[in-house]
Amino acid sequence: MKFKLAFIGFGVVGQGLAEILLNKEQELKERYDFEYEVVAISDMNKGAVYVENGLDMDKVMEMTDQDVSLEEYPDGIKGWDPIKTIKETNADTIVEVTYTDMKTGGPALEHVRTALKAGKHVVSTTKGPVAVSAVELVELAKRNEVQYRFEGTVLSGTPAINLAWETLAGCDIKEIKGIVNGTTNYILSKMEEGMEYEDALKKAQELGYAEADPTGDVEGIDAQGKMLILSNTVMGADLKLDDVAREGITDISLEDVEKAKEDGYRWKLVGSTKKTDGGIEAKVAPEKIPLSHPLAGVMGPTNALTFSTDLLGDVTVVGPGAGKKETGFSLLVDLLAINKSLEG
Amino acid sequence: MKFKLAFIGFGVVGQGLAEILLNKEQELKERYDFEYEVVAISDMNKGAVYVENGLDMDKVMEMTDQDVSLEEYPDGIKGWDPIKTIKETNADTIVEVTYTDMKTGGPALEHVRTALKAGKHVVSTTKGPVAVSAVELVELAKRNEVQYRFEGTVLSGTPAINLAWETLAGCDIKEIKGIVNGTTNYILSKMEEGMEYEDALKKAQELGYAEADPTGDVEGIDAQGKMLILSNTVMGADLKLDDVAREGITDISLEDVEKAKEDGYRWKLVGSTKKTDGGIEAKVAPEKIPLSHPLAGVMGPTNALTFSTDLLGDVTVVGPGAGKKETGFSLLVDLLAINKSLEG
Repeated sequence: MKFKLAFIGFGVVGQGLAEILLNKEQELKERYDFEYEVVAISDMNKGAVYVENGLDMDKVMEMTDQDVSLEEYPDGIKGWDPIKTIKETNADTIVEVTYTDMKTGGPALEHVRTALKAGKHVVSTTKGPVAVSAVELVELAKRNEVQYRFEGTVLSGTPAINLAWETLAGCDIKEIKGIVNGTTNYILSKMEEGMEYEDALKKAQELGYAEADPTGDVEGIDAQGKMLILSNTVMGADLKLDDVAREGITDISLEDVEKAKEDGYRWKLVGSTKKTDGGIEAKVAPEKIPLSHPLAGVMGPTNALTFSTDLLGDVTVVGPGAGKKETGFSLLVDLLAINKSLEG
Repeated sequence: MKFKLAFIGFGVVGQGLAEILLNKEQELKERYDFEYEVVAISDMNKGAVYVENGLDMDKVMEMTDQDVSLEEYPDGIKGWDPIKTIKETNADTIVEVTYTDMKTGGPALEHVRTALKAGKHVVSTTKGPVAVSAVELVELAKRNEVQYRFEGTVLSGTPAINLAWETLAGCDIKEIKGIVNGTTNYILSKMEEGMEYEDALKKAQELGYAEADPTGDVEGIDAQGKMLILSNTVMGADLKLDDVAREGITDISLEDVEKAKEDGYRWKLVGSTKKTDGGIEAKVAPEKIPLSHPLAGVMGPTNALTFSTDLLGDVTVVGPGAGKKETGFSLLVDLLAINKSLEG
């Protein structure tokens, strides 16, 4: 089918998807019968534009590259905010890629809710709404006969939620456990090479793996959000962020890392969520893993998740956990899943 | 929807699916709106029975456990061969789980062809038809508006074909490389512990990992078939079995294994298929892998595949490659995929 997309937010991830769609237009049509036009973009910094018959995305990318506001686009209606763009454009599918507040879900939560209520599909990489209200939103989507997909909220485009939902469908997943934060995994990998924590962090910041304020990563908050999302979308829980116990890596010393290495172990920041008699238990904490364990070999910015199931035993997926193309792809694969389901 | 299934073949794998379906009946209905009845079974050794309104599968499993022929089933039509069962029963979906000839595809190839021509879906774990005629059969299914799914032909239920088709949709897969034969991987793992090849093989036979005649595994023929299937169903090739270069593990000595270990390497039987300027190149051969490589950590009967893609870089999946439940599950996940696509 032909999708009419509206981008809410047009930062790195949104542009990542836009580039992929431009590069693969012909291939997506031939292989998947997938066509699209972008009818609107509404971004806090880059401005907003709505063209009923579709924007010239080559032109849009050129303007974005040159830091020209979308309000300068030679055509269309300008200045609509996200809510107006979601409600009043002819878009049938909303690409929600704004910023996130893990405690309140805002402002993205309102975008997703508004879109689903208006009978529009949503594909999104914004963690907040899924973390805060996954159960409500999935139900809302169902009631409005549209889809809300968010593969990119856990391991960017590496199959995680879709792996569980599609390729493990019919399995009872008893536990999900893994490395879901590339920054801390990179820092721990560097420490094992002999670097002090502070130096490894600086290196991660230089490479763009860690932000200027690294708290979200090193204190385990990012991983906590991801384990919450997996708990509520795959394990059938309805937890809040604080229900996921959390401990970061800041107390791990170079000495700890070296001692573990001598004993045949490796420190990893491990997130887990499992079914227990008392319900779903989720946590994030540093763990000393034997070198023979599959997760021990996952080094640097790479992520990994092991799904423990009734029918297959353990299935592990290893792949990137971040990146412009990688996260852009997660939106594409979600769009293709919607496309496929609509073709019946 | 409610599927009407006919089992062609009712050996270990077919019984594996039947058990899962019995155990999960309620859950599958609630979670996936999936219902089924088994209207027919036709097996070379166990006999054949057709009951239009559905067999009592508890009864069937009891008879099978007690080695009682299905011809003794208290009801229905007896003795129909596979082709008659496929054509003349009211089944809408054929579970094809007979034996396989990798060179000719027979007799399963004729079962699959007949079913697709009759407008019936096919889920199958039989490698022959996919190895010999994947391109033709997928096209035939499309023309008849039914599905032919065969996840279980590569890594039993560990996501492989479905991983590529669904969760990596939109990626250009440039290479698939991995460990797709558990028997040889087990033997090599044991040799690394100091066992001679012959002793490791005997141990594998004792554990049921290797057959009395181990040629198919140790000479790489099983892996060759799997790389052929991945080439033709995921990489877009149309190769024949002999186009996949093949070398087994019988020339690897304990000395080779020990020498590699000293140098920080590990011998693995590696299958690969990749896009080159000259087309798809596929092969199976022992390879010395550095211990730091993700595939090096895959030990014993476990399998693994790394998909190298344009958008995600490398994505690796690790899981079981065989087993009654595991292969039975592959049929279930294929049925659930058909169920989902029909719900639109």
